[in-house]
Amino acid sequence: MTVSDRWLLPDGVEDILPPLAGRIESLRRDVMDTCQRWGYQLVIPPLIEYLESLFTGTGHDLELQTFKLTDQLTGRMMGVRADMTPQAARIDAHTLGQEGITRLCYAGHVLHTRPRHMLTGRTPIQAGCELFGSTSEAADLEIISLMLEALRVAGLPRVHLDLAHVSIYESLIASSGFDKDTEAAVFDAMARKSVPELDRLLGGCEPGSAGARLRELARVSGGVEALEQARVILGGASEALDAALNKLTRVVEMLSRDFPEVSLGFDFCELRGYNYHTGLVFAAYVPGHGDAVAKGGRYDAIGSDFGRARPATGFSLDIRALVALGERVHHRSGAIWAPAAEDSALEGVISGLRMTETVIRQLPGDEPADPALQGCDRQLVKKDGQWVVEMLS
Amino acid sequence: MTVSDRWLLPDGVEDILPPLAGRIESLRRDVMDTCQRWGYQLVIPPLIEYLESLFTGTGHDLELQTFKLTDQLTGRMMGVRADMTPQAARIDAHTLGQEGITRLCYAGHVLHTRPRHMLTGRTPIQAGCELFGSTSEAADLEIISLMLEALRVAGLPRVHLDLAHVSIYESLIASSGFDKDTEAAVFDAMARKSVPELDRLLGGCEPGSAGARLRELARVSGGVEALEQARVILGGASEALDAALNKLTRVVEMLSRDFPEVSLGFDFCELRGYNYHTGLVFAAYVPGHGDAVAKGGRYDAIGSDFGRARPATGFSLDIRALVALGERVHHRSGAIWAPAAEDSALEGVISGLRMTETVIRQLPGDEPADPALQGCDRQLVKKDGQWVVEMLS
Repeated sequence: MTVSDRWLLPDGVEDILPPLAGRIESLRRDVMDTCQRWGYQLVIPPLIEYLESLFTGTGHDLELQTFKLTDQLTGRMMGVRADMTPQAARIDAHTLGQEGITRLCYAGHVLHTRPRHMLTGRTPIQAGCELFGSTSEAADLEIISLMLEALRVAGLPRVHLDLAHVSIYESLIASSGFDKDTEAAVFDAMARKSVPELDRLLGGCEPGSAGARLRELARVSGGVEALEQARVILGGASEALDAALNKLTRVVEMLSRDFPEVSLGFDFCELRGYNYHTGLVFAAYVPGHGDAVAKGGRYDAIGSDFGRARPATGFSLDIRALVALGERVHHRSGAIWAPAAEDSALEGVISGLRMTETVIRQLPGDEPADPALQGCDRQLVKKDGQWVVEMLS
Repeated sequence: MTVSDRWLLPDGVEDILPPLAGRIESLRRDVMDTCQRWGYQLVIPPLIEYLESLFTGTGHDLELQTFKLTDQLTGRMMGVRADMTPQAARIDAHTLGQEGITRLCYAGHVLHTRPRHMLTGRTPIQAGCELFGSTSEAADLEIISLMLEALRVAGLPRVHLDLAHVSIYESLIASSGFDKDTEAAVFDAMARKSVPELDRLLGGCEPGSAGARLRELARVSGGVEALEQARVILGGASEALDAALNKLTRVVEMLSRDFPEVSLGFDFCELRGYNYHTGLVFAAYVPGHGDAVAKGGRYDAIGSDFGRARPATGFSLDIRALVALGERVHHRSGAIWAPAAEDSALEGVISGLRMTETVIRQLPGDEPADPALQGCDRQLVKKDGQWVVEMLS
């Protein structure tokens, strides 16, 4: 291995340098502060856990995304977290074990075996909020509102919100009576939104049957009018479907009232990327970027896998991707250059300035022209026996 | 596996809950802000790298501490960082490639295969600063001063600073002419500070020889007087030893002047825990805690392994351990309870308050007695048609 090979980082892994690192840290703080001002309390889940607890209730996709490690202390298999939401659910169900409403937030690195998105690579910085203990629409609305607020803090313009309800598809499939192979073929065709394939697979289903409804539903997407079309297609199919549509409708009414500037869309075939969700799901998009910038939804089942059933909804986003997409103005304040002179008065002045300002001390290796290169716009100079700050010429 | 087994976390791995998580986040921010006000720029090195670049110039101990992973994209071995200092050195040498002085700081999780310290477990939160491009004592002094300032920010009382210079031992051993086995036995006995064993191993060495000097040096430790004793023992042995002692003496003079409240100690046999260091090393202790709370030193060699020789010195500490040891006062501000009422005036009042305050919204699942349990000390109530904040009774 040559010296230059040693420098290479794996694909999807990067050094984040100044000033980008500072912008990421600044957004991380602002998003966390916003969550905390909405009453969400910070938790720091561990980077690694036993595989059983990482994967409980989360589905197969997350398992493929997770790096595996052997625990030298026990010989058991551990994983590096690929998603912090199931960790928050474990903390709520087991570690905290509170009654009533629990609101948690978190931010930290997660690791993926393969890059999910171009912008985030394999080491996204996930931040998110989770609300446990409420099945109400008010809880869904609070989580979506807070997600939109976080995107506003990140400076994202023109956010579009896609809404769906995973139990619509699940409820139709459950009543379809398809065998496993047909079910898998339908899932695949729905996820790829392949209308011709769905026509072939479902064309023979009787009108009014679950299969026929699925076929019609796959053609529906768009704004609030799509919700009305879905109502017509699914009318009278089952109580569960009516409940799902009613819930979606109520949340849409509240969102239209509170966020008139956000455009809403519906996609009843959205099946990918929701590993453990059970109810209303949502994803936010911005123009010119194909992947969701934030997403989330209801996942009432994970807690029960940890022995305590708790309704839950939440969202998460990738701070690294938001910094790349947002139009946030980053105020980088200047710095003061201080000479190397040994002088106890100078030490005192520097200590005082450092309460609020950046002061960079000259060292023997510094070139005379360095201060401006190091971001300094002012310097400390001695005038009439006093150390004073003046502008760099 | 039963439900309760799924809840278990591996040894040395923990969920950090509120309010501790908030205190850790707060100290992390304050330490990073302090480093930045001294001119250290934030970098975010990746969680994973190829093993070759993680281990370049770092020594065997770090290798044993590092979790290994296979990169699915290339089949090459990667590791989860166990120490961020070598990553900062790689960033300085390769990614940034600046001339003159470069100051970098960082904070993030690292992962250890086995716990190093009781307080930190296997997932410490490492924060640190590195100064590249200067061989001067001014650079060593700046790094030590900044480390002491970070410990002050963490609220650590009565800090003791141990100083050493790794080239004293290395230079004596190099001139001793010992075979590999004797060298290993002497290293082991020195590291354990076993005077009887050193007497046995080195008792036969001629007076004035490297072996005899090592044996005498192992008996020396303590305050500034120990430095004088070492001068006598090592007098005239070699130019490298004189240079090391002179450097130590100059840094000690500056530290005694700037930090009269910090007690200084010297330990010339300190060999453990310095994996890649080449010169002046230091470790900070507090009463009642056996492990160093912060440590660092000079490591001029790592950069050259990346193809670019750069003098370097730095320190790092574990934010998690500092929060456990420090006497920092944590101001937890209260929160305001807001009712669930649908009222556009209330929405406006809540949005305004959330600019600076925490406002927790009532949800259908909330019990009437909840507000105080959730940390609220005030509530929003409607009086004469106006929403006002009043104290919770």
